Amino acid sequence: MLIIGERINGMFKDVRKAIRERDASAIQQLAQAQVQAGAGALDVNVGPASDDPVGAMKWLVESIRQVTDIPLAIDTTKADAMRAGLALAGPGSIINSTTGQQEKLDVLLPMAVEHGAAIIGLTIDEKGVPRDETGRVEVALKIVAAAVEAGLEPDRVYIDAVILPMNCMQENPGHVYKTIRECKMLSDPAPKTVIGLSNVSQGTTKRELVNRTCLVMAIAAGLDAAVADALDAELMDAMITADLLLNNQIYCEDYIVAWHKSHARP
Amino acid sequence: MLIIGERINGMFKDVRKAIRERDASAIQQLAQAQVQAGAGALDVNVGPASDDPVGAMKWLVESIRQVTDIPLAIDTTKADAMRAGLALAGPGSIINSTTGQQEKLDVLLPMAVEHGAAIIGLTIDEKGVPRDETGRVEVALKIVAAAVEAGLEPDRVYIDAVILPMNCMQENPGHVYKTIRECKMLSDPAPKTVIGLSNVSQGTTKRELVNRTCLVMAIAAGLDAAVADALDAELMDAMITADLLLNNQIYCEDYIVAWHKSHARP
Repeated sequence: MLIIGERINGMFKDVRKAIRERDASAIQQLAQAQVQAGAGALDVNVGPASDDPVGAMKWLVESIRQVTDIPLAIDTTKADAMRAGLALAGPGSIINSTTGQQEKLDVLLPMAVEHGAAIIGLTIDEKGVPRDETGRVEVALKIVAAAVEAGLEPDRVYIDAVILPMNCMQENPGHVYKTIRECKMLSDPAPKTVIGLSNVSQGTTKRELVNRTCLVMAIAAGLDAAVADALDAELMDAMITADLLLNNQIYCEDYIVAWHKSHARP
Repeated sequence: MLIIGERINGMFKDVRKAIRERDASAIQQLAQAQVQAGAGALDVNVGPASDDPVGAMKWLVESIRQVTDIPLAIDTTKADAMRAGLALAGPGSIINSTTGQQEKLDVLLPMAVEHGAAIIGLTIDEKGVPRDETGRVEVALKIVAAAVEAGLEPDRVYIDAVILPMNCMQENPGHVYKTIRECKMLSDPAPKTVIGLSNVSQGTTKRELVNRTCLVMAIAAGLDAAVADALDAELMDAMITADLLLNNQIYCEDYIVAWHKSHARP
């Protein structure tokens, strides 16, 4: 399981303030804390309020690159900010994200090939998020086919079945789990799967409990990665234990300590 | 999700002592605490050390019946203790358990019919526990077919795919999850599924974390019931949240309180 740390996002007040004041050490501390907590990649998002997304993205990536070589998920809807972020982050980055819309695929898939990046593909098309797993798997198939056409291996695509807040879309998580399971049969090698975890608990009163329960259920369905709060120690413990129960890690008494040692990064 | 409280079991020192000293109030307190914590049934097991299993079972069931009408899972390998327990516990009880072995089915299935009980069927045959889901589903099918033959509806059978300690059988939980999923396609109505949860964490250092992670993964696979520690509040919270994420309960801000209110029993 790959945890893509979610905290460097202009949606968070501390990050917004750090971007505005160009306070690199605040960003670097957040980067290092997430890496230390077990994140295997870091999401980087300037936030919706930025009036200079390209400049802010460049500054964020450069600030992070001064302290860690960890892969970055460049998270923006703006093609120029994406290109600038990928160029500075280096190979092994993740494009976050395309949808199944042709005009996005046409721009972002060649960008992934050019920069040696993986890409997150949301199961969204011109009509929005399909209601159930059938529609989502159809969009996933379109994305995977377009990726292969563009020269990207299917397992460099992370299908994101779009988890929605459970307090208003309670049937959604079930559809997401089924989509994850069915995506494993789409191609050989299969595409990877990812969720934007914290979305499920938006507006609920027990966010951590909902997040970690949802993550464990998605791992049981075969999830490969999550954009999530790596600083939530209970979430990480649950993730590591779920991975162990699927026999993906070798059991030892101190398996949580062992996981962190084997996943330690500079 | 039905939680069958596991605590009234002679394996536990306090229960063994209470049985020996015929201390009914100790047993009644354990019964009431589990019911209050959300158990929907209580397992009753005199333990391996008892020299009078029939007398001990009768005394246990009578003691519990003085304080609660909750369904009891009569948990013994001895046919006479099973019969005595079922007679005193009343209809709605659960036989814990048969295996796929013909001589057990021949005795216990008619007993279930006679006493209006459900029955737990372990996926074990003459050769032991089959290695993977294929063998376990075969045994499950044999049990369900024999139950129907004996006059028991398939959904009064709880298939138990036998969860083993993960520290020595790490590939086991994955086989159990697959068996749970496949059992849903065995018949219409499908048999129910159950696990003896705490077994998975035997001998591990993080028992509660392993138990609740394993339970949430099994719920994601479609689990209906677990013999488990109802007094573990974090386990119950995780179970309720998983059930909610599968849209089996209606979301509200205080969904854990609401669950307990709607599951309150005398």
